Amino acid sequence: MTQSENNTSTSSTKAGPEAVRSEAVESHQLIAAPVNEATADIGVIGLAVMGENLILNMASKGFTVAAFNRTTSKVDDFVTGRARGQTILGADDLPTFVSLLKKPRKVMLMVKAGPAVDAFIEMLAPLLDEGDIIIDGGNTHFPDTVRREKALAEKNILFVGAGVSGGEEGALKGPSIMPGGNAKAWPELKPIFQKIAAQVGGQPCCDWVGEGGAGHFVKMVHNGIEYADMQMISEAYSLLSGALGLGAPEIGAIFDEWNKGELDSYLIEITAEILRKVDDETGKPMVDVILDTAGQKGTGKWTSVTALDVGAPANTIAEAVFARILSALKDQRVEASKVLRGPDAQDAPDHDVFVEQVRRALYASKICSYAQGFQMMELAAAEYGWTLDFGSIAQMWRGGCIIRAAFLDKIKAAFGSNKALPNLLLDAYFTQAIQESQMAWRQVVAAAALRGVWTPAFSSALAYYDGYRSERLSANILQAQRDYFGAHTYERVDKPRGEFFHTNWTGRGGSTSSSTYNA
Amino acid sequence: MTQSENNTSTSSTKAGPEAVRSEAVESHQLIAAPVNEATADIGVIGLAVMGENLILNMASKGFTVAAFNRTTSKVDDFVTGRARGQTILGADDLPTFVSLLKKPRKVMLMVKAGPAVDAFIEMLAPLLDEGDIIIDGGNTHFPDTVRREKALAEKNILFVGAGVSGGEEGALKGPSIMPGGNAKAWPELKPIFQKIAAQVGGQPCCDWVGEGGAGHFVKMVHNGIEYADMQMISEAYSLLSGALGLGAPEIGAIFDEWNKGELDSYLIEITAEILRKVDDETGKPMVDVILDTAGQKGTGKWTSVTALDVGAPANTIAEAVFARILSALKDQRVEASKVLRGPDAQDAPDHDVFVEQVRRALYASKICSYAQGFQMMELAAAEYGWTLDFGSIAQMWRGGCIIRAAFLDKIKAAFGSNKALPNLLLDAYFTQAIQESQMAWRQVVAAAALRGVWTPAFSSALAYYDGYRSERLSANILQAQRDYFGAHTYERVDKPRGEFFHTNWTGRGGSTSSSTYNA
Repeated sequence: MTQSENNTSTSSTKAGPEAVRSEAVESHQLIAAPVNEATADIGVIGLAVMGENLILNMASKGFTVAAFNRTTSKVDDFVTGRARGQTILGADDLPTFVSLLKKPRKVMLMVKAGPAVDAFIEMLAPLLDEGDIIIDGGNTHFPDTVRREKALAEKNILFVGAGVSGGEEGALKGPSIMPGGNAKAWPELKPIFQKIAAQVGGQPCCDWVGEGGAGHFVKMVHNGIEYADMQMISEAYSLLSGALGLGAPEIGAIFDEWNKGELDSYLIEITAEILRKVDDETGKPMVDVILDTAGQKGTGKWTSVTALDVGAPANTIAEAVFARILSALKDQRVEASKVLRGPDAQDAPDHDVFVEQVRRALYASKICSYAQGFQMMELAAAEYGWTLDFGSIAQMWRGGCIIRAAFLDKIKAAFGSNKALPNLLLDAYFTQAIQESQMAWRQVVAAAALRGVWTPAFSSALAYYDGYRSERLSANILQAQRDYFGAHTYERVDKPRGEFFHTNWTGRGGSTSSSTYNA
Repeated sequence: MTQSENNTSTSSTKAGPEAVRSEAVESHQLIAAPVNEATADIGVIGLAVMGENLILNMASKGFTVAAFNRTTSKVDDFVTGRARGQTILGADDLPTFVSLLKKPRKVMLMVKAGPAVDAFIEMLAPLLDEGDIIIDGGNTHFPDTVRREKALAEKNILFVGAGVSGGEEGALKGPSIMPGGNAKAWPELKPIFQKIAAQVGGQPCCDWVGEGGAGHFVKMVHNGIEYADMQMISEAYSLLSGALGLGAPEIGAIFDEWNKGELDSYLIEITAEILRKVDDETGKPMVDVILDTAGQKGTGKWTSVTALDVGAPANTIAEAVFARILSALKDQRVEASKVLRGPDAQDAPDHDVFVEQVRRALYASKICSYAQGFQMMELAAAEYGWTLDFGSIAQMWRGGCIIRAAFLDKIKAAFGSNKALPNLLLDAYFTQAIQESQMAWRQVVAAAALRGVWTPAFSSALAYYDGYRSERLSANILQAQRDYFGAHTYERVDKPRGEFFHTNWTGRGGSTSSSTYNA
C-alpha cells in the first residue's frame, strides 16, 4: 500500500536527457565553487517535492540556501532546473554542503521520517560545531524527536523537530511550521521560519511550540484532526448523496455555499473544486471514478494511539482512522454488500431543510473533533512536561496547513481569553454554536442511523458531546461489574475520591482483592 | 489510579496473628520435607488471589501442586489456611520449589505482568533442565510473550503464555485458559489445563491457541470484547433509565428476562444481580451510590492499539475504551454539565416496545463487536504468522471467562461450518439475527441521538455494520483530497487495483508526487 510511491506520473523535476544533465553538473559547480565561503543562511537536505518547494520558498524570501540530496543527480537537476538563477547553492557532498553554511549552521532535514533521519544526523554531527542546529522537518513520530533532541544536546548540537504542513503548495508559498525541541535554537531560526511561513492577519503561522517533541506532537495532532475533518466532509457528501440523491456537481455547489459561512476552510474549498472536476477519460465526475479505499497507518494512527496513552477521549479522531481502515477492506465490503441488507427504503427529506441540517451537523461535529484535539494536547502537555500555548497553536494552523479554516480565529480567541480553558466546548462562542446546531445535528445522526448511511465521525462526535456534558455516566455499572467479577473496588458518590470500596455481591466467599487480573 | 491495589477490605488469606504464623511455618515444613522427592505435577509461583485459587482448583482435580511466593509468609499462610489438608506443597525458596516438581517440570507464573515475569524467568532458568516448561498465566502483553518464548527456546526451555480469564471465582472453579507459545509444551500441559478449565458441553474451555504470543493475544482480544460487552450493557441501562425513567431494580428484572433468551450470558446475569443489590449504608440501590468513573490503560487499550496496528476496523472496542477514558474525567464532566445543554425534552417511548428495541439493539451491537474481535484475530494471525482456529477459540470462551455466553455456540458453529469465514456477519445465523434486529437497532440509535443519551458503542457498532455492508464508501472523497493537496495518487474503479493515478486538480503547476508528506 505504498500509494504515494507508486505515482504513475513522473515528476517534472526529475532526470532530463543525459546532455542536459552533464551541463547541469558543470553549471552548478560553477555556482558553488566561487562562493565556497559560508554564505548560506540555511541548508536543506532532501530534494523530494517538499524539500525543493521549501528551498524555493526560502530563496524567494531573500535567504541563501544550500541544497543537498543523497542521490546527487537530483541536486544537479534542481540547481539547473527550478532553482536556476536563485540564491540556491547545490552541493555534491556533505562536507561541501556544511562549508557553505553561515554559523551557527542551520541544517534542515526534509527526508523520509525514520532511519534516514538518524543516518543523516550521524553523518552531520562530526561536521558540525557546538551551537549548530539540525532541524527535522519531516513527519517524524514525536518520541523519536524526544530521543534525538536529548542525544544531540549532549554534544551541544541544538535539535529541533518541526512539523511542516501544507503539502507541496504550502511548502512553496508558505506552510504552517510547528517547531519544538531545543529552545536555544529558536532565536536563530525565528527570522527564517516566521518569514517563510504562511501569514494570516499580519501574523506568521509559525511560533515556538515547546520542549522536546512538542513540535512534532502538535503536528501529529494536526494530522489527526485533519483525518477527522476529511472524514466528516466525506460523511456530509454521503448524506447529501445518499438521502437526497444529489450528484457530485450539485454537492460541489452546496460546499461552495458552505465555504462562505462558518465552515470557511481549505478542505471545504478544495472539496468543492474536486466535486466539480470531470474525468477526461469518461466524462464522469472525477470522484465517481476514484476508488473508495483510503490509506492509513500514518499520523492519524499515532494520534489515536497517543490519545489512548495519555487518556484523552479522542474517539472521533480514532473513528476517522478506523473509517480509513474499513475503506481499505474493499474486497470484503463488495462481498458483504451482496449479503447484508440495509434498512427499508425511506422517502427523501426536504432538500433545503436537510442541506442546512447537514451543514450544522458538520460544524458541530468539527467543533467536537477540535475540542478532542486540544484536550489531547492539554493532557499530553501535562504528561510530557511541556508548556503549550493553545492560542498560538490555533494561529499556527490558521494558514498554510491543510486544516486552515476561519474558525481557528475563534479557537485562538477562546484560548486568548482563557489560557486554562479545559475544553473548547466550554468557551462561550462554541457553547452557543453547538447549542444552535444541536437539534439539526441530532436529527442528521438519527437520519443516518435510520437510512443506513455510514457516518461514524458524526455520530461519535455527538457521543463525545453527550458524554462530556453528562454529570453522570453509566460507568457506575462497569465499576460494579468489575468489582463483582474481579474485586476491583469502586468509589462512592457520597465519599471522598480516593477511598475504595468492595462489595461482597454474591454473599459467597470472603471479600478479596485481585492483583493480577485487570479487566 | 491503582484501584485494584487500594482495596479497603483486607484479603481473608492474608497474615493472621503471629502465633498462628509460627505454627504455620512449622506445619508446612512438615508437609514439604518428607516429600522432598519430585512429586508435584506442577508448580505455581505467586499467591495473589488468582494464583491461590488456581492452585486450589488444580489440587481439587487430583494434581499435586508446589507453591511459592516471593514474600514467603504468604506461603505459610496459604499452606496452613486455605490449602490445609490438600495436595499442595509450600516451598520457602526457589531451589526447594523446583526440587518438588516432576520432570519435565512445569512452573506457572501467576505474578504481575511486566518486570516480575522477567525476574522470575531469570531466577528459574538456571534451576531448570532442557525440556522443562515455564507458563506465564498473567495478563501479559503478547509482544512480551513473543520475546520470552524466543529467548527461552534458545535454552531449550519451553515457554507458554497462557491467558487465564474468569476472575477469582473462575480460577477456583474452572477458568477459560488460552495457552500459546512453544507447541512442544502442549502435550505435557494438556492433561492438567484441560482438566482444571471450565467444561461446557462436555468439552474443556481450553485448547492450544497457537505459536508465539497467540495465547496472550487471544486473551487480549477477549478483554477488548469484554470492554465492549460491558459498555454496551451500561448503554442499555442508560437508555432504559434515561428514556423510560426506570430504576435499578426494574432494569434488573428486565435483564433477568433478557438472560433467558439470545443474550444469555454471564455479564447480563451478574448485571441483573448487581442492579438488585441494595446498599446497606443508604438503603439505595448499590449502583446509585457507585461513582461513575471506570479505570482503563489495560488490555482494552492494547486491543485498540493492536487493531490500529494490524489494520482491523475494531471501532466499537476502541469506543468502549474511550468511554472509560471519558468517564474518568469526572470533574470536567461535572463542570461541563452546568454549561452544555442537551436536547429539548421528549415524551417517554412506549415501555414494552422500547424495552424490546433496546434488547435487539444490544444483541445486534454485541454481534458487531464480536465480529470485530474475530476479524481482528484473523488479520493478526496473517500479520504475525499464527494459525488460529476460531471455532476452538469460541469454545474456549464458552465457559469460565467473563464473556461466556450462550451465543458463543453460534460463533463456534459458524466457524465450524466455514473455517475461512471472513466475518461473523456473513454467517447465515448472524446475517439473519442482524436482519431481524436492524430496524429496532436503528430506532434505538436514532432515539439516543435525539434524546441525548450517551451510546458510543451502540452507534459505533451500527456504523461498523453500515460501513462493512457498503460496496462503496465515501473514501473516494478522501482519496481525491489527498491527491489534491499531497499528490498521494488514487486508484480508479475502472482500472485494475495497483495502478495509481494523479490528477492535476488546479490546472496550476506540474503533476508531482509527495514522498515526505503523509496525510
